[in-house]
Amino acid sequence: MKKTSLPIGMHDKLFKRARVTYQIERTISDLLIEKGFNRIETPTLEHFEVFGDEVSSSHYNLFDKKGALLSLRPDITSQIGRVIASTQVETPIKFSYSGKVFNYHEEMRGLINEHTQAGVEIVGFPVEEAMPEAIFSAKEALDKAKVPSYRFEFSHAAVLQTIFAGLGLSGEDKKRLAIDIVDKNITKLKEFTKAHPSDFDDLIQRLPYLFGESSQVLSEARQLTRNEAILAALDEVEDLIEQVKPNLSLANLDLAQFPSMPYYTGVMFKVFGDKVPDAFVSGGRYDKLFERFGAKELTAVGWAVDIDSVYQAIHDSLRQGGAS
Amino acid sequence: MKKTSLPIGMHDKLFKRARVTYQIERTISDLLIEKGFNRIETPTLEHFEVFGDEVSSSHYNLFDKKGALLSLRPDITSQIGRVIASTQVETPIKFSYSGKVFNYHEEMRGLINEHTQAGVEIVGFPVEEAMPEAIFSAKEALDKAKVPSYRFEFSHAAVLQTIFAGLGLSGEDKKRLAIDIVDKNITKLKEFTKAHPSDFDDLIQRLPYLFGESSQVLSEARQLTRNEAILAALDEVEDLIEQVKPNLSLANLDLAQFPSMPYYTGVMFKVFGDKVPDAFVSGGRYDKLFERFGAKELTAVGWAVDIDSVYQAIHDSLRQGGAS
Repeated sequence: MKKTSLPIGMHDKLFKRARVTYQIERTISDLLIEKGFNRIETPTLEHFEVFGDEVSSSHYNLFDKKGALLSLRPDITSQIGRVIASTQVETPIKFSYSGKVFNYHEEMRGLINEHTQAGVEIVGFPVEEAMPEAIFSAKEALDKAKVPSYRFEFSHAAVLQTIFAGLGLSGEDKKRLAIDIVDKNITKLKEFTKAHPSDFDDLIQRLPYLFGESSQVLSEARQLTRNEAILAALDEVEDLIEQVKPNLSLANLDLAQFPSMPYYTGVMFKVFGDKVPDAFVSGGRYDKLFERFGAKELTAVGWAVDIDSVYQAIHDSLRQGGAS
Repeated sequence: MKKTSLPIGMHDKLFKRARVTYQIERTISDLLIEKGFNRIETPTLEHFEVFGDEVSSSHYNLFDKKGALLSLRPDITSQIGRVIASTQVETPIKFSYSGKVFNYHEEMRGLINEHTQAGVEIVGFPVEEAMPEAIFSAKEALDKAKVPSYRFEFSHAAVLQTIFAGLGLSGEDKKRLAIDIVDKNITKLKEFTKAHPSDFDDLIQRLPYLFGESSQVLSEARQLTRNEAILAALDEVEDLIEQVKPNLSLANLDLAQFPSMPYYTGVMFKVFGDKVPDAFVSGGRYDKLFERFGAKELTAVGWAVDIDSVYQAIHDSLRQGGAS
């Protein structure tokens, strides 16, 4: 009965789930507008080229009647990159948004292929201002949405990017290594360094352990490499953590954090709750976003919060408190 | 440059347009939740069968990886019909929603193929309660959104449905007649009655004039037909207008109003502004919605407001007042 069954990964939200996710989206959107982020709304459908040079099987793709291939947007940051690169919008500028994004998975946990996101983009400002503003606005959004407890985990795109560039891997090997890093698969990473020996062997083998309290992680990481790009990245993330730590309850490091979008260029951060497996928030610096669209490089920092994960965290905490 | 151009009918909203349309959607959604309508969120993608028995070229259609044909939802009412017919949701119930809907047009005015809608469905209540509640909640939503002036136009699905059923037309002739009625094309309707003579000739020829002040329209319409189904429909819409008129500044009739969705079964209404060509609001009674999904007939009344049209009306009134 196709009429009454839902497509893979699509869901109805009813009653409390619908009401509370709406309120979370609204609360965060209102906060961001109030804080001076210009609201922007980009369309659900775009030419696939906006999101990547190749057609991705993890996107929902369709042809329009003129034969152009369109994608349901997998993220909104790329769209805002397009807007800034191709219109008369003047920078510096701060944007905020909320809306649906789509990723086609068939076997992921929970099979949620449509997510509600809210987020910001801070474009053209000095990074010393933009990065703390991004971090603190994300924190304020989570506080306002009454997320009971969470931790920031920082990283730097250059750590893994430098390793990958230095190894000169094929597409297939790249993918495999990325998966083993994300999974913190100690055995597989050891096997990898045997098959592809390099100056990065020590660092790669220890990647699964390089998370937690930042000063410890940094001191261990510095002993594992002499690569200048990586050492500079570690300095940069250390400076930032020093700056923001007094205002964050938990600011850890996770050097195995993989850039969730290919356009990341600098410090990255994710925010996790105690009980929810996926990050609430993903953010970071991505100055190269605009080059894709033929515009010049611009300092850009942003984040997106997954409203459904936030709902999960709030719902769980309400249940534990016996309130629902 | 596919990377920097938008697909047909897709648009970015920036600055005031983005902020105000967001506020309109939020204001109306908050009002409806406050009034006791249960918030519901249905997915952007559904099996095409939810929206009709045949694949429609005015929808955005795509295949998933299992070969099922999906559509980007062209309306939300059909989805709520699916939910009520196929889940354990108990009736009577009132729902409210907001979100995107998609229709594929290539040459329509303004070429807006993605619209933001908000609306309600009132299901399983006695129609004498449900219809006024639908009408007054639509009015309250427009007032709350500060729409400066508007008029309600009523009709009844049975008027045109009875004519069409009585004529026994082919698919092509049906389509043509529908277009001529919507366009109020006096010449074409005369030609039609010559080619397809019937008891409805007088009524069909006068359809383009059967709009305006309700008592006049009703008295003229009653002289043009003896068809019992149509006369009963006219009585029903008259009773309703009597009931709601004291609370509406303008309540007209337009008997050439074409059911915007095939599931309408009773009184229909649209709300228009002075300057905006499209209706702000479309609503009415559609008891047969649930049969499509294998469930029993249920009294159902609802409406949807087009947030973009409301923005246009507010924006125009602000400009005239010199405020923007």
